[in-house]
Amino acid sequence: MPGKFITFEGPDGAGKTSVMKAVSQQLQVELGDQLVVTREPGGNPISEAIRQIILDKNNTAMDVRTEALLYAAARRQHLSETILPALAANKLVLCDRYIDSSVVYQGAGREIGERAVYDMNQFATEGLMPDLTLYFEVPVEVGLARIAKNRPSQAQDRLDLEQAAFHERVHDAYLKLVAGDPKRIKVIDATAPLEQVEQETLTIIKNSASSYFK
Amino acid sequence: MPGKFITFEGPDGAGKTSVMKAVSQQLQVELGDQLVVTREPGGNPISEAIRQIILDKNNTAMDVRTEALLYAAARRQHLSETILPALAANKLVLCDRYIDSSVVYQGAGREIGERAVYDMNQFATEGLMPDLTLYFEVPVEVGLARIAKNRPSQAQDRLDLEQAAFHERVHDAYLKLVAGDPKRIKVIDATAPLEQVEQETLTIIKNSASSYFK
Repeated sequence: MPGKFITFEGPDGAGKTSVMKAVSQQLQVELGDQLVVTREPGGNPISEAIRQIILDKNNTAMDVRTEALLYAAARRQHLSETILPALAANKLVLCDRYIDSSVVYQGAGREIGERAVYDMNQFATEGLMPDLTLYFEVPVEVGLARIAKNRPSQAQDRLDLEQAAFHERVHDAYLKLVAGDPKRIKVIDATAPLEQVEQETLTIIKNSASSYFK
Repeated sequence: MPGKFITFEGPDGAGKTSVMKAVSQQLQVELGDQLVVTREPGGNPISEAIRQIILDKNNTAMDVRTEALLYAAARRQHLSETILPALAANKLVLCDRYIDSSVVYQGAGREIGERAVYDMNQFATEGLMPDLTLYFEVPVEVGLARIAKNRPSQAQDRLDLEQAAFHERVHDAYLKLVAGDPKRIKVIDATAPLEQVEQETLTIIKNSASSYFK
């Protein structure tokens, strides 16, 4: 497959979406339409309709495996309509979250099992893994504190504690992925000052995709 | 798993749905609410919403793997909301189509590969296979002729020929499944007179699920 496929991953509150936005704007200047910046569901009508089912607050009976299959279906369609054509046209594709997110959120967070979710997603991706993944690392409590910043403080109840355990599982699973595939997944310290995180991200992308910057 | 799980399978035009209806009515008299008769998507809101996406005529860009994942998601939810609770309550469950249909229609018909579709569906079913599958066998041309009976005759065009090839692949794949698992899958000659097909179906079910008929 020509092109270059780079994904952004990290726990909630890592700030990767903001970093991705800032970095994309800078890369856009140099690359123009050689750069494709995307995120699931990716704006196609089929994946958007799937996302609606996942997010519908009335669907409280949704089984965790149904949810994982729906995410994989939306991923497949996004791949088919957006990512694969862009790579075939030799573009540099930056994608906010991909298969690793399913492995850690559904596999570990929802406790389906990381291997089972990974294997099922191979059907969706036909084995297409990113050339490079940037993992934005923050400790769980830092990430959650960033998210909760604007929320009124309140006593921890049972649900909060369950959620903390969920995010611990997600974070642990990310660290396992990093340890298992250090060649693909590069760790960025997302507790550093924003400007430094952006600069490091930009440097890694430019080194990895150097042929686009000649 | 207590209960008994029996599925009905066959190519288009095999008449299995009519047979299932007639047989269910007879079994209902003896079993009352010990009997559950169902079919995917199974009437739950989540699976119905998924089915709407699959059937939406505007979704012409739908990738074949997206479609297969959506069928698996609808199957999982139907299993979770209808089949598993019924089996747990020790009921006899008759289901019109299940995993075999995905293997032959998506795997062979749409040429994704039977093994790949089977494996992906194991994620959806957690390995729950039917205790018994009734396969209603008709030659492709007989099945298609039954379906086309009320359609005005017309010259075969390219699409018709493609569809014939599709149905040949589906039929061949069904025969492979039967050959590979003769213990689970019982073949019923669906070219026989309807009354005979119904009688044979009833006999096989009663023999297989004899504990329900004491």
